[in-house]
Amino acid sequence: MAQRLASMRIIVRLEIENTGSIFSYIATAIGASGGDIVAVDLIQSRRDVVVRDITIAVENRAHGDRIVQALAALPGVKVVNVSDRIFLAHLGGKIEVKPRVQVKTRDDLSVVYTPGVADVCRAIAEDPAKAFTLTIKRNTVAVVTDGTAVLGLGNIGPAAALPVMEGKAMLFKQFAGVDAFPICLDTTDPDEIVRIVKAIAPAFGGINLEDISSPRCFEIEERLKEELDIPVFHDDQHGTAVVVLAGLMNAARVVGKELADLRVVVCGIGAAGVAISKMLMAAGITNIVGVDRVGIIERGKTYENPMWQWYAEHTNPENRHGTLDDAIEGADAFIGVSAPNVLKVEHVKKMAKDPIVFAMANPVPEIDPDEAAPYVAVMATGRSDYPNQVNNLLCFPGIFRGALNCRARQINEAMKLAAARAIASVVSDEELHAEYIIPSVFNKRVVEAVAAAVEQAAYETGVARRERQPRTGGDD
Amino acid sequence: MAQRLASMRIIVRLEIENTGSIFSYIATAIGASGGDIVAVDLIQSRRDVVVRDITIAVENRAHGDRIVQALAALPGVKVVNVSDRIFLAHLGGKIEVKPRVQVKTRDDLSVVYTPGVADVCRAIAEDPAKAFTLTIKRNTVAVVTDGTAVLGLGNIGPAAALPVMEGKAMLFKQFAGVDAFPICLDTTDPDEIVRIVKAIAPAFGGINLEDISSPRCFEIEERLKEELDIPVFHDDQHGTAVVVLAGLMNAARVVGKELADLRVVVCGIGAAGVAISKMLMAAGITNIVGVDRVGIIERGKTYENPMWQWYAEHTNPENRHGTLDDAIEGADAFIGVSAPNVLKVEHVKKMAKDPIVFAMANPVPEIDPDEAAPYVAVMATGRSDYPNQVNNLLCFPGIFRGALNCRARQINEAMKLAAARAIASVVSDEELHAEYIIPSVFNKRVVEAVAAAVEQAAYETGVARRERQPRTGGDD
Repeated sequence: MAQRLASMRIIVRLEIENTGSIFSYIATAIGASGGDIVAVDLIQSRRDVVVRDITIAVENRAHGDRIVQALAALPGVKVVNVSDRIFLAHLGGKIEVKPRVQVKTRDDLSVVYTPGVADVCRAIAEDPAKAFTLTIKRNTVAVVTDGTAVLGLGNIGPAAALPVMEGKAMLFKQFAGVDAFPICLDTTDPDEIVRIVKAIAPAFGGINLEDISSPRCFEIEERLKEELDIPVFHDDQHGTAVVVLAGLMNAARVVGKELADLRVVVCGIGAAGVAISKMLMAAGITNIVGVDRVGIIERGKTYENPMWQWYAEHTNPENRHGTLDDAIEGADAFIGVSAPNVLKVEHVKKMAKDPIVFAMANPVPEIDPDEAAPYVAVMATGRSDYPNQVNNLLCFPGIFRGALNCRARQINEAMKLAAARAIASVVSDEELHAEYIIPSVFNKRVVEAVAAAVEQAAYETGVARRERQPRTGGDD
Repeated sequence: MAQRLASMRIIVRLEIENTGSIFSYIATAIGASGGDIVAVDLIQSRRDVVVRDITIAVENRAHGDRIVQALAALPGVKVVNVSDRIFLAHLGGKIEVKPRVQVKTRDDLSVVYTPGVADVCRAIAEDPAKAFTLTIKRNTVAVVTDGTAVLGLGNIGPAAALPVMEGKAMLFKQFAGVDAFPICLDTTDPDEIVRIVKAIAPAFGGINLEDISSPRCFEIEERLKEELDIPVFHDDQHGTAVVVLAGLMNAARVVGKELADLRVVVCGIGAAGVAISKMLMAAGITNIVGVDRVGIIERGKTYENPMWQWYAEHTNPENRHGTLDDAIEGADAFIGVSAPNVLKVEHVKKMAKDPIVFAMANPVPEIDPDEAAPYVAVMATGRSDYPNQVNNLLCFPGIFRGALNCRARQINEAMKLAAARAIASVVSDEELHAEYIIPSVFNKRVVEAVAAAVEQAAYETGVARRERQPRTGGDD
């Protein structure tokens, strides 16, 4: 992180009284505050004032704020606006909607719009399945949120969630050629959300639910899966689960243990924790113990929180009691989706030989990776500045690419398992290493491998609507 | 239209048994049916069969069908698929969603996605108005339909309506740089539609309602206008109305009459007829008589149809009775948005000197333009193969461009009037002519003129949210 902060730049727009010497005071003030002037642009020049954009290299946001305060205190200087490159990259939004063919002549117009388009409308009215070939439904996913659980920011609402959904749409297109569009809903009522997503579904080939708080996300996803005939996938749950499983598969390879034999402690039993646990079970792992604020989720106990209740019914086969301290004893792997610094070195020392630790609390992990290093065999985090980043971006582009390719009705367990295996398989035996169990998000083989495996699994499980096409054939 | 049909091409994909001589039978069959082979492509070659795409010039669809039947009857030949260039242009949909900046490195990712994006989310959560600068809301319009009144096809449903909405989105982008995305709703309940559009509004700077049947379209638009703080515009009503007014302004110039003095007969009192009439009234025209299946809509009479009731209360100042025959007597202008061939030459002969006839029923107008020609001074239709095409495409790109530019809260009467005047003004005094009262949709000056006039009107009427910017200044 340090490197990014050192190179941070802010752009300060100043309205400066037009009296010769003021600019030297400005330059002095910036230098005295420890900033470096990178560029000066003249925006406007009137008789009395000039408007300039000053680009300044600063150490971090607080440092930038101090410089701006120093400038604002100068006589004859007014700070109009402050931007940094993050804000500049967001100006006007991050995605656009473009025609796939140009409309240059009246003849073009008659093909893509009236009167020609009426033939296409009629064909779809007669056979709705044609929407998959003749419209954007073939390749388009809705990225749906209600803004209730955005990144680590919590319930910030649909408008403030939009930049994340735009970012997701960018990544869908750039990594997998999937067209995705943000649907930010100004309602948090599950019934309403289900009704709306069903109503807008005709134009989409898939629904990516995003940043919806639990436990509402379960109900919304379950109902939509049942009532829609296109894939519905809550990425925060299943994307994370798929990548964790991929990582754990390779971690087991590194330490020479069988995946199914691992005894796993999952810390943080929320939406992600439950989805991860279900995924691990689907992959054959049977000994999972969950820990949350109440301590170990105990078999047979009754919990008000529906996620904990589910957990009590499906995990902890040895019926352990107590706290994380008791759960971790002899465990092969710790999977944290909880809070900073809950895992201590003492805990790790009590784990089985060659401990596997996935500490994914963001931005501060369950245990400091440097502190843990001497005691763990394999370590993963959610951060990009340590090895083995668990990043959903390894999963969602490829999984939807595969599902859209074959017009899948759903993304089922077999397809998610196939995605996890595909991600893991990108790391070859020769490359495999404690610090390389998870491939880079920029490794192009990831999307290809995931899409192919997911498509294959969809055909095998009978959820693909498209007839298998000869690879040399045309497109429908 | 004849020209387009003469140049129609179909592409027939054939699976042909791999026995040398069959292709000559195919060529013979096509020639004997009057088709011309334009191209032959080899798609796949297996030991037993070859798959070929044969492109054939045909006269029209029926002709193409006959040729396909002849081919299907040949032994050893299987017709796999038939396309024409209209269907080919629609394959896979007509729009795509693209990143405005590329994400190539981990550093890029940290700016447009996590962790950088969190700063932008936080800024919008603190000040929601920032969504207009930092997200796609700035430049994005939802094209919303329920598929109940699509082109002349009627209630064909949301999936079959999608190609029209995609076409509209293409035109928004290409003509005015507006990003538009189709929202095709699988519900026809006005309450539900209002709720959904309100719920999805956070990501959009405007709502273009499209192809929603009347009278539901009135209620839906009115309620959305009241409850949303972004422009809501039902294009079938207001787009048509704006272009009709523009045409009528120039028609009045051609015949040397004052616009406000025109006595106008509107034939077809549906959504478009009412919107046109309101627009003409806003422009100062007072003497309007409406005609529908029941004859003249009479002042003081009570009608069940809410549109006719409104009409009875607001038009027909001379309180005319009877049929179109009675209404047309001495009228300066006839505006038809009704049905084929309802206007007879005898009617036109009874109009005032220099009759103006807008016959916009599609595809067959209220009167055949060639038949009417000797008796009218100015004639317009909805068709592209006659002069003076009344086409919404002259209005919607520019009106939304202007509204988005200034972050308008609504598109009000003043903005629509400004749009009509701007469209009319593109035809200069020198160019003005009975056969050129409406500029071409491909005239680039139209969008510029409309956008500038609409933006100006928004500032003047206080519905612009954006501070007026010096044109040399930066963005925000």
